[in-house]
Amino acid sequence: MADRPIITLLTDFGWGDGHIGAMKGVILHINPDCRIVDLAHHIAPHDVMGAAFVLGQTYAFYPPGTIHVAVVDPGVGGARKPLVLETRDYLFVGPDNGCFTLVLKQEQEVQAYQLVEKRFRLPRVSQTFHGRDIFAPAAAHLSLEIAPEEMGPAVDCADLTRLAIPEPALDGATLLGEGIWVDYFGNLVTNISEEDLGAFAPDGLIEIEIKGERIKGLKSSYAEGKEGEIIALWGSAGLLEISLKERNLHRERGWGRGEKVWIRRSR
Amino acid sequence: MADRPIITLLTDFGWGDGHIGAMKGVILHINPDCRIVDLAHHIAPHDVMGAAFVLGQTYAFYPPGTIHVAVVDPGVGGARKPLVLETRDYLFVGPDNGCFTLVLKQEQEVQAYQLVEKRFRLPRVSQTFHGRDIFAPAAAHLSLEIAPEEMGPAVDCADLTRLAIPEPALDGATLLGEGIWVDYFGNLVTNISEEDLGAFAPDGLIEIEIKGERIKGLKSSYAEGKEGEIIALWGSAGLLEISLKERNLHRERGWGRGEKVWIRRSR
Amino acid sequence: MADRPIITLLTDFGWGDGHIGAMKGVILHINPDCRIVDLAHHIAPHDVMGAAFVLGQTYAFYPPGTIHVAVVDPGVGGARKPLVLETRDYLFVGPDNGCFTLVLKQEQEVQAYQLVEKRFRLPRVSQTFHGRDIFAPAAAHLSLEIAPEEMGPAVDCADLTRLAIPEPALDGATLLGEGIWVDYFGNLVTNISEEDLGAFAPDGLIEIEIKGERIKGLKSSYAEGKEGEIIALWGSAGLLEISLKERNLHRERGWGRGEKVWIRRSR
Repeated sequence: MADRPIITLLTDFGWGDGHIGAMKGVILHINPDCRIVDLAHHIAPHDVMGAAFVLGQTYAFYPPGTIHVAVVDPGVGGARKPLVLETRDYLFVGPDNGCFTLVLKQEQEVQAYQLVEKRFRLPRVSQTFHGRDIFAPAAAHLSLEIAPEEMGPAVDCADLTRLAIPEPALDGATLLGEGIWVDYFGNLVTNISEEDLGAFAPDGLIEIEIKGERIKGLKSSYAEGKEGEIIALWGSAGLLEISLKERNLHRERGWGRGEKVWIRRSR
Repeated sequence: MADRPIITLLTDFGWGDGHIGAMKGVILHINPDCRIVDLAHHIAPHDVMGAAFVLGQTYAFYPPGTIHVAVVDPGVGGARKPLVLETRDYLFVGPDNGCFTLVLKQEQEVQAYQLVEKRFRLPRVSQTFHGRDIFAPAAAHLSLEIAPEEMGPAVDCADLTRLAIPEPALDGATLLGEGIWVDYFGNLVTNISEEDLGAFAPDGLIEIEIKGERIKGLKSSYAEGKEGEIIALWGSAGLLEISLKERNLHRERGWGRGEKVWIRRSR
Repeated sequence: MADRPIITLLTDFGWGDGHIGAMKGVILHINPDCRIVDLAHHIAPHDVMGAAFVLGQTYAFYPPGTIHVAVVDPGVGGARKPLVLETRDYLFVGPDNGCFTLVLKQEQEVQAYQLVEKRFRLPRVSQTFHGRDIFAPAAAHLSLEIAPEEMGPAVDCADLTRLAIPEPALDGATLLGEGIWVDYFGNLVTNISEEDLGAFAPDGLIEIEIKGERIKGLKSSYAEGKEGEIIALWGSAGLLEISLKERNLHRERGWGRGEKVWIRRSR
């Protein structure tokens, strides 16, 4: 890996502005040999939970040694710490604002360091764009095999910011979950995992209620059901998903994050 | 090529989600040396014809050996076959749903194979995201010089799915065409090629009618005409294009795919 | 650099079309070893000033030897010249329409050449897509160390197109500036630099008026102020920025380019 290290970028900067271009320039200036991978750039502005979700669903597919940079940073210039995290296989760079919530949940061993060493920042650090001035140079220096612990003092992982991710709850004979993500097609991803449902209804015979609509059972893919039918199925993240067959559920119904989903065993 | 092979990605996943990032991770995990090129990611959701059009206008510009991955796949998890196609210069990976319509039209010799070999897929294959679980790993293995025929049984090219592309028709003294694509600027690309028009009106003296508007003759570039004038000219794909000078024709007039265009010789 | 040269792309083509993909294919066909960096692709259609601004804020972060291609080109096929510019550290390729206004302002020594040599273009040049037919092949050949002066005759830099960038004006006790850019978050970037304000109010005690709203003093970052408060601060380009804390100023208030900003010393 070390000869052409991979740095991924996850931001809410969009493709119409200079922010992505500036970060890439900074990285390539410090390490012209590294390879930059655009992971996602249209996270909704300031949507830290969205960044956490997208990062959590993708980072582990990358080869060991990959450096993941996540910059959705509404608190830039404020008190939140700039961080590097080290896990068994990866390094993560970004603000301590919850972007790494799912990484911290999924990884066993995490070391964290605060990015304070001035020699691994741009000479002049703005208060409005740490993606360019702190995070990009840190990632580039890490790709040159600077050790994370050289970049600043260790931070206790217990002190890192974690967003509250709603957990499904058992309420008598009902499993209560909720929407946690809307994908590009307008499908509503819930917080109910295959494990959750397997424990609740081992035979898989369920009825789902959402906003007064009742969905009987699960489809096995988007290819099932009739056009315009509301269906439920397992999405690619292993989470229960509600979809409007061949159409955009979120746009047509407005269902989004926080929408409650009741699951009952069906007789 | 073989030392740093090129894999292009064409999807309808958008930049706000984890799908692109997951596919890239899977590819780089299998072949860290390959180079991923983002070809297009904002094909309209489920627009297989759009994918076919964009792929058809771009793939042949790439160096021989390039592997093109196209994932606009509304039927994921259903009956449509996952494919690899081999042409003289390229490999193509994606679903058998019409994405490759223009490739099949433009290429002389095509071999097709169904992607069934489990060792070239992710260990666990979802029913909702074959881009990550089947197509990305197939492309990565192809970039490691696994032969397409190792990936599954041959498929007769005559059986591959082709979308019906409307052909211009001669109706007495009128050449009747229609819109087949709206570009990012709102220009309407029609199905009338330079060859079609050359055969119809060798002197190039024509009048075009669309939605009751009459356009006399062709401009040679967008730079001609007055602001707000409806003009016709040859677009970059060698197809007749209707444009609203310096403005967005599609947004202002609503003209899109299927809009009829009548061409008559002018006296 | 020469073994894996970097070519950046800045366009208004969007990710839903084949234009970006075609340009990349052309470049890689001519020089398979070069590395293409997506700088920005959602510049507003035909917004040459936007291209100039984004390029001006980003190009200098790249390593020396980088080739920057900018294609926001509403006059394609018309009289504007296709150019290559050479500065101390970089090469720039694109139309002579003002895209390079800020490069020309920031760089001391610039040589310019008109791209006329047919051997450095595609064999067939359309009148509608010089990004693919002229600019991409020129950049690829430059990355193969073809000298800019081989590509066509020198152009006097004094004759190059520069967009008028409004300068802040001193009007009695008032410094009058205006909005020149709206970023992806809806913040309004003005033309007032830290130098401008330092000369006007060395003690930094100012009041800003915009559209009848008065803003007292500057915040040091987006993290200050209350949600929904209109704040002013130094943006990442070193320019005064007006922001609606945690919200989208441009969308909610409609303030954009050309919006006047009055600055007075506060007592």
